[in-house]
Amino acid sequence: MGSHSHSGRRQFLTGGALAGFVMGAIRSVRGQTAAPEARPKDNLAYGQTSRFDNTIRRAPPRGSAITDTALMTPLQDLDGIITPSGLHFLMDHVNGIPEIDPQTHRLLMHGMVDRPLSFTMDEIKRLPSVSRVYFLECNANSRPLRDESKDSVQMVHGRTSCSEWTGVLLSVLLKECGVQRGASWIVAEGSESNKYTMSMPLAKAMDDILVAYAQNGEPVRPQQGYPLRLVVPGWEAIRSVKWLSRVKVADQPQMAWHETGNNADTRPDGKGLWFRFELGPKSVITRPSGGQRLLPGFCEITGLAWTGGNIVRKVDVSTDGGRTYKEAELQQPVLRHAHTRFRFPWKWNGEEAVLQSRCTDERGEVQPTIAEAAKNLGVTPEYFYDADHFNGIQPWKVSRDGSVHNALA
Amino acid sequence: MGSHSHSGRRQFLTGGALAGFVMGAIRSVRGQTAAPEARPKDNLAYGQTSRFDNTIRRAPPRGSAITDTALMTPLQDLDGIITPSGLHFLMDHVNGIPEIDPQTHRLLMHGMVDRPLSFTMDEIKRLPSVSRVYFLECNANSRPLRDESKDSVQMVHGRTSCSEWTGVLLSVLLKECGVQRGASWIVAEGSESNKYTMSMPLAKAMDDILVAYAQNGEPVRPQQGYPLRLVVPGWEAIRSVKWLSRVKVADQPQMAWHETGNNADTRPDGKGLWFRFELGPKSVITRPSGGQRLLPGFCEITGLAWTGGNIVRKVDVSTDGGRTYKEAELQQPVLRHAHTRFRFPWKWNGEEAVLQSRCTDERGEVQPTIAEAAKNLGVTPEYFYDADHFNGIQPWKVSRDGSVHNALA
Repeated sequence: MGSHSHSGRRQFLTGGALAGFVMGAIRSVRGQTAAPEARPKDNLAYGQTSRFDNTIRRAPPRGSAITDTALMTPLQDLDGIITPSGLHFLMDHVNGIPEIDPQTHRLLMHGMVDRPLSFTMDEIKRLPSVSRVYFLECNANSRPLRDESKDSVQMVHGRTSCSEWTGVLLSVLLKECGVQRGASWIVAEGSESNKYTMSMPLAKAMDDILVAYAQNGEPVRPQQGYPLRLVVPGWEAIRSVKWLSRVKVADQPQMAWHETGNNADTRPDGKGLWFRFELGPKSVITRPSGGQRLLPGFCEITGLAWTGGNIVRKVDVSTDGGRTYKEAELQQPVLRHAHTRFRFPWKWNGEEAVLQSRCTDERGEVQPTIAEAAKNLGVTPEYFYDADHFNGIQPWKVSRDGSVHNALA
Repeated sequence: MGSHSHSGRRQFLTGGALAGFVMGAIRSVRGQTAAPEARPKDNLAYGQTSRFDNTIRRAPPRGSAITDTALMTPLQDLDGIITPSGLHFLMDHVNGIPEIDPQTHRLLMHGMVDRPLSFTMDEIKRLPSVSRVYFLECNANSRPLRDESKDSVQMVHGRTSCSEWTGVLLSVLLKECGVQRGASWIVAEGSESNKYTMSMPLAKAMDDILVAYAQNGEPVRPQQGYPLRLVVPGWEAIRSVKWLSRVKVADQPQMAWHETGNNADTRPDGKGLWFRFELGPKSVITRPSGGQRLLPGFCEITGLAWTGGNIVRKVDVSTDGGRTYKEAELQQPVLRHAHTRFRFPWKWNGEEAVLQSRCTDERGEVQPTIAEAAKNLGVTPEYFYDADHFNGIQPWKVSRDGSVHNALA
């Protein structure tokens, strides 16, 4: 569902036609006077899920340092590629979710620009918009892969979700401000109490970073950055700054705490691993997965694949622990920087089996085994389990009694 | 996001390999013992919308015969093509939503089949699945186009929504049962108190009708048919039977009340119009639209297009009441039988304008003006406004004060 510029739009955007953008607006007559409603909304205004439906986010087991701010997407209960907005993973380093009135919210664009500008939400929403299906994955997803307490795909890999995002390309706003010569970075800042801050190369901002106000059709929810957030496709989700209030154009990164202190790995040599943005090819079988139980007979194997390296080219599935692989079917159309659903027909014969999947992306990069991943990084597996950007292959063991468990636990 | 059979799946389905399908199952160990939760779910288990966000369904104005069962999708507040499940339109002729326990729910396949079968939800969910983005539109949508009380796109056209549906193709279930020679229809029945019943040609069932258990990733919501419903792509939504409990294979339609009494038009000659399934090419501008207000300057025009005739080929937009049209940009990829988002750059000069859009589908069929639509049907416009399958062009009038109104009201 990506929307790429075509001749009509290019024609429109050239020749300084953008000047005057901030002169007009659409406002809803009703919306201006409506009083904020209690949440959650009632079942007529907003239909709820079944009381029999236990598809919910869950926090990681106690003992994790991130227990109180992490909520994991129930991948084992989901189908297709869209994650319902209410089930999108949450991983915040902030004490409380900002409650922002969109009527008073502003986005300030400043720094190395010809015209610093402050945008209201109304002004942003009438600019040329795009809608694109993008996954967001936390840099720390799948990290404690073999922790014994992590026996479900939700608890191990539930920090990835996928939505149809709508907003304005950051490049449109930057062009409106006029980026000055010599600029090479942008620094994005959120509205929360600790002013979460992230730096990214200007080239990415001019390519495909989205300033999003809608998720899966409706306004972005508060936990996801209402009313405005960045969506940085293919990169670790910590870059997709929520509750976005400022974008500064600069000639160097901010070296903010969230990017150089927290969220940075320490290498074996003691140096920091900074500014690793792009996520590698990855996949995981979501059904059957840890905590489920099989009966003998036919059983479709299904899961999700994704990559920062453009699009998923293929996913291979093994039912014998990686000795042999066969290609799975990919849900069409396969979208760039989106979750890709794969499906594989299988008949369980009642014997032990180890199920795993392997993603290959458009660049030809292949999801590594855990041993390969450790070797690639030049570290020991023990170190690797604490590393970010973990994309090793996840094996699920099916026992003769039909129970499925994390084969690494 | 459609998923079409490829060589692997065809190979799997041939040669009677489906026999044994009902012998296995995946069950969630946790799910079996979990107690049903209160609804709506809390903000951690399931993230809610902002209290500042008034994007909600609304019932039509009083005086309509369908007031108490209709809830309209707020198209003017939505972006992209996905409708959040909680905002999907609702149009039921039933007193109350069935509350169905999926553990006890069964789908009975019977009639002119070799092997009548009763499927549990677990059995259905482990069959080969597909996910496809389809719109559903009520046959009565847009009917009272010029009713003075209908001044917003939500109130006039809000009986259309679009979701990523996941389930099993009905053809898979029919093949498992073995359809007998001479069969030509299926009759689908829901679980509600009045046993809502709809007949459809067997050919459509063997083509693309979906038995859906998931909508936008999660289980279908109760108002949309939890735990199981039909999704009949491109056809009037009254065919997409909710709370599906029976499918009978037959050699003639059931001639049930919902298809020949209610939901059937009376022609000027007094005869009934029965079994009009497919919806024609249609589009509507959702922003700017009735009830909104413009300020002079740039303003993106955006809206939705859809058709029962495969995919939308193009959408033209006019800002002068149809005298001249220019082609709009379509959100990519354009999907068969899905909403298609169009966008059109515009700068309002402060003068009166009439905004309207026109859809052309893959077959070359063009969305008609109201006069053309009436002429095509051989009826007067007065009759036409009560007719189903209304797909006439919707004009929105922009006045000099920036207010936008239904030009037909």
